[in-house]
Amino acid sequence: MVSRSGSADGPTRQSLMDVAITLFARHSVAGTSLQMISDALGLTKSAIYHHFRTRDELLSAIIEPIVDQLADVVRDAEARRTAPARAERMLTGYADLAVAHRDLFPVFSGDPGVVDFLRTRPAWAEVVRRQAELFAAVDPGPGGQVRAAVVMAGMAAAVGVPFDGLSDEAVREELLAAGRRTLGLRTPRVRTA
Amino acid sequence: MVSRSGSADGPTRQSLMDVAITLFARHSVAGTSLQMISDALGLTKSAIYHHFRTRDELLSAIIEPIVDQLADVVRDAEARRTAPARAERMLTGYADLAVAHRDLFPVFSGDPGVVDFLRTRPAWAEVVRRQAELFAAVDPGPGGQVRAAVVMAGMAAAVGVPFDGLSDEAVREELLAAGRRTLGLRTPRVRTA
Repeated sequence: MVSRSGSADGPTRQSLMDVAITLFARHSVAGTSLQMISDALGLTKSAIYHHFRTRDELLSAIIEPIVDQLADVVRDAEARRTAPARAERMLTGYADLAVAHRDLFPVFSGDPGVVDFLRTRPAWAEVVRRQAELFAAVDPGPGGQVRAAVVMAGMAAAVGVPFDGLSDEAVREELLAAGRRTLGLRTPRVRTA
Repeated sequence: MVSRSGSADGPTRQSLMDVAITLFARHSVAGTSLQMISDALGLTKSAIYHHFRTRDELLSAIIEPIVDQLADVVRDAEARRTAPARAERMLTGYADLAVAHRDLFPVFSGDPGVVDFLRTRPAWAEVVRRQAELFAAVDPGPGGQVRAAVVMAGMAAAVGVPFDGLSDEAVREELLAAGRRTLGLRTPRVRTA
């Protein structure tokens, strides 16, 4: 049983989402049932139903705020003047999000359940496509596309590695350095925090 | 129902493994039961039991030959004289394997079921650890470790992307180029095929 805080009259929506992310990472989305989530919190299934009717509804609640933030970064990046500047802005925004969600991004990067789910949300899949395009445009052609895929999946998976002794900020800096090298971007002289 | 060849007296071991890989990629390992695999082949569960008693046994049969090949590459790489030469040999061997198994490597890169399974096989996890060490040693310190993680997961996931019109050989070359850039390796003058 996973110990999480909940209000006296039932689990909070957020505690259900937190436990779900832990279980998704451990068992994959397809391997995690609402029953398993309620069991982990010591609840009946009906307590979950008050907040989420299906696993997809729960998954949606987890993903939506992150896709919204990603979409903000994509729009901001697309407004820059050059392809390298656009990719650099996208890269820093993606690293920020990945490091802020080190439990969740590895699930995003490889879980077929998430890939399937994105197919049912064309607007969200479009955000991911635009992100890939921003990275790929640094070097138009097949090389750019392959490097975009390596950077996106590689960074998402890498934040799941503990890297003993490295702070989140150090992981973020190293991810940015790795992403710039992969995409062929120069380290900017003035850091955008 | 997935159409696969099988001998007259039952499904071949290989056709069961092929269908399993397709279903793992679609539903994750945890989301794929032996029942689903037999259903996809239009078989009874007892027909599978003749070959595999559990899903782990099937997963093991799929992974073992690839880990064996990976271990060969690791040993060959470790025998080279310099850190960059060791990483370059590891990188080409990894790209070869990833491109030869474009259906399976994306499952390896992100599926918690595979990660869990590797925990039960310390000898196999050790091969993966040695591979990461070969990549990380190009630049001792945290940067090298992060770049090793990005390259390993990024390449494994990227082979799952269709990249319209790109041949396997072109994908392999672009993966090598991406991996070398990420790790900071020079393109070798004489290509080792």
